[in-house]
Amino acid sequence: RINGSRLWDSLMEMALVGPGLRGGCNRQTLTDADKEGRDLFKRWCEEAGMTVGVDSMGNMFARLEGAEPDLDPVMMGSHLDTQPTGGKYDGVLGVLAGLEVVRSIRDQGITPRRPIVVVNWTNEEGTRFAPAMLSSGVFAGVHTQDWAYAREDAEGKTFGEELARIGYVGDESVGSRKMHAMFELHIEQGPILEAEGKDIGVVTHGQGLNWLQVTLTGQEAHTGSTPMPMRRNAGLGAARITDLVHEIAMSHQPDAVGAVGHCDYYPNSRNIVPGKVVFTIDFRSPSFDTQEDMERRLREGAAKIAEELELGLEIEQVGHFDPVTFDENCVSAVRRAAEKLGYSHRNIISGAGHDACWINKVAPTAMVMCPCVDGLSHNEDEEISREWAAAGTDVLLHAVLETAEI
Amino acid sequence: RINGSRLWDSLMEMALVGPGLRGGCNRQTLTDADKEGRDLFKRWCEEAGMTVGVDSMGNMFARLEGAEPDLDPVMMGSHLDTQPTGGKYDGVLGVLAGLEVVRSIRDQGITPRRPIVVVNWTNEEGTRFAPAMLSSGVFAGVHTQDWAYAREDAEGKTFGEELARIGYVGDESVGSRKMHAMFELHIEQGPILEAEGKDIGVVTHGQGLNWLQVTLTGQEAHTGSTPMPMRRNAGLGAARITDLVHEIAMSHQPDAVGAVGHCDYYPNSRNIVPGKVVFTIDFRSPSFDTQEDMERRLREGAAKIAEELELGLEIEQVGHFDPVTFDENCVSAVRRAAEKLGYSHRNIISGAGHDACWINKVAPTAMVMCPCVDGLSHNEDEEISREWAAAGTDVLLHAVLETAEI
Ligand SMILES: NC(=O)NCCC(=O)O
Ligand SMILES: NC(=O)NCCC(=O)O
Repeated sequence: RINGSRLWDSLMEMALVGPGLRGGCNRQTLTDADKEGRDLFKRWCEEAGMTVGVDSMGNMFARLEGAEPDLDPVMMGSHLDTQPTGGKYDGVLGVLAGLEVVRSIRDQGITPRRPIVVVNWTNEEGTRFAPAMLSSGVFAGVHTQDWAYAREDAEGKTFGEELARIGYVGDESVGSRKMHAMFELHIEQGPILEAEGKDIGVVTHGQGLNWLQVTLTGQEAHTGSTPMPMRRNAGLGAARITDLVHEIAMSHQPDAVGAVGHCDYYPNSRNIVPGKVVFTIDFRSPSFDTQEDMERRLREGAAKIAEELELGLEIEQVGHFDPVTFDENCVSAVRRAAEKLGYSHRNIISGAGHDACWINKVAPTAMVMCPCVDGLSHNEDEEISREWAAAGTDVLLHAVLETAEI
Repeated sequence: RINGSRLWDSLMEMALVGPGLRGGCNRQTLTDADKEGRDLFKRWCEEAGMTVGVDSMGNMFARLEGAEPDLDPVMMGSHLDTQPTGGKYDGVLGVLAGLEVVRSIRDQGITPRRPIVVVNWTNEEGTRFAPAMLSSGVFAGVHTQDWAYAREDAEGKTFGEELARIGYVGDESVGSRKMHAMFELHIEQGPILEAEGKDIGVVTHGQGLNWLQVTLTGQEAHTGSTPMPMRRNAGLGAARITDLVHEIAMSHQPDAVGAVGHCDYYPNSRNIVPGKVVFTIDFRSPSFDTQEDMERRLREGAAKIAEELELGLEIEQVGHFDPVTFDENCVSAVRRAAEKLGYSHRNIISGAGHDACWINKVAPTAMVMCPCVDGLSHNEDEEISREWAAAGTDVLLHAVLETAEI
């Protein structure tokens, strides 16, 4: 078993880097706080006897040598970046649990045949630079590095500039690291495990994601003196499409979700009819067909709304992945570990996207989930118990040791 | 008649102060650009033989002495501040037309019995600091100065701080200036005069305004892993209320307008269900009863929407005035001037709010309107012709001279 209080102390120490305003974290990708978090993680890894390499996307790989260094390593990891109003565990738990697994292996004097690598994937959240899971995506060959470097934040700064600014353009070429398998521990971010009193989620699938950015263009006009029939109100169009997104997701219950999380009015003045609104839609489903149906209905409905209101309409896909089926052997290793340790468990589909979803394309991959309070995540109030964190990390330890051929 | 090309040159010169990005202006109240515009106006007034006083709200009064200095002066004016994406004429025309009237009077060696004063009212637009027409409102005793000083912009800077910062806290106490009457020339900001080919709008009434700021509070949550029934989506609530605002205004056609111009999502992240949305509603009508009905239905409908979606709801009134009836004698003076000069004219109700609407409470007041292209205003593309500007200023000249007892 791992050392639960050491794990917890590291989680709490990392949470002080880029603290949120209400008890959570604001350690958005490629900010100064992200650099500070990375530096701390690097120091901890070196203290635990690992050597840390960085690739050209800023992905960090901390390696513990195996008895047979030429064998491909087993990886574990997740991400250290957070939402602007994020929690202390989303992503961070998976990285620091990896570190704790290595610390425990060393405590116990074990040397597996295969090397073990703890990974921090850059820009998982996708809030500052869309899409999410950007750098594991480049690692898996889903995006090119040039395209990723050109992603812009709201202020027009590019990913490439900001990565260089914080000094994390590494010398390894992205995707060059071989791996035998990868495991990612993550909080569920949903309510199922807690509600059913299960310690562990054995993640068999991940739902697909579709992010659409919509730009509606009307005409700025005076809210007082412009007659209603003359208005081309982009805000009204955005409102109707936002409601449509909800309606479409509701029609596929319980196999889909949909919402608008980001919305900007221009020029955003009390007495100007909005001339432009830009907003993003997040549709997800474990079913490929449902994903397709939702996008089709959205495009049809939005076109109709735009036509009625005489608005220009542009829809751009800014993030996308198909539903994922994780590797059978890796999933079994997770299930066996939970069994062996006597933790209650159930199969689960990940509602969120994870770096593991991309890595699964290039190496056998699986995920371990632990519960979180009220299913709440992407919220500063995100909470887990020490016991949940420790149980998840125990399962990670055993799945990794088995795979690394102890 | 006034000098139309001199007027136009001044309009174009002022438009270079705080230029917009697309040919219009961004000279928002109490910014550095506002200070620069004020300084230029002051210089022009002094060059035209006027003495300039400033009151404690930053309202500027440029006075041309009359033959009988003890008589109360006739005022004309409007505002030099603009929307963030505003036009070159909204407000500015009324101030610079006042200056042009004085320049013309001096050219022609006329000295009316009453002094003539050209006014620039502070913060008419109300975008940076709500409500609109803030300083004419304090002048008319509708708001207290302390309350006005405490108004905050989006960054939390107060009106009082920013007025002091640009050096325009004058030594006159606000409201102390006596006046015999006031006239305001303004572009229509609507399509009626142009559509009917009329040179002049004789403004008999102004419609009432009601600004409501709505705060919806839900819960930030993950857009992927939070089941639909567990969501408290503040963005969805805002969308439904935005549509309701439109529906309510449409039910009162053609006697009402309504729109949401300003809307902020929190935390505004693609993969977070919005936990809070703050937006403002702008309802207007020339009918008192309609204004009341719209607010009542909005409050009822919003409460129902918030209840259904399990959202917290707060509605705060951030601007309000009742429908206005302008002074009969002043209105007649405007009509007589148009007749005498041979300009086509019609009675009109102002769709927008104006400083004249507040000043009408403390002195006989009227407005002159001139057409604008396509009725477009609060848009950088706002446009008028030189002829329209000159005709409106001619009418202002004659109405003012008659009232100032030439
Ligand atoms: N796990 C997680 O929150 N990832 C961010 C990408 C997503 O929105 O699913
Ligand atoms: N005239 C004008 O645009 N005033 C600003 C206040 C309003 O929105 O009516």
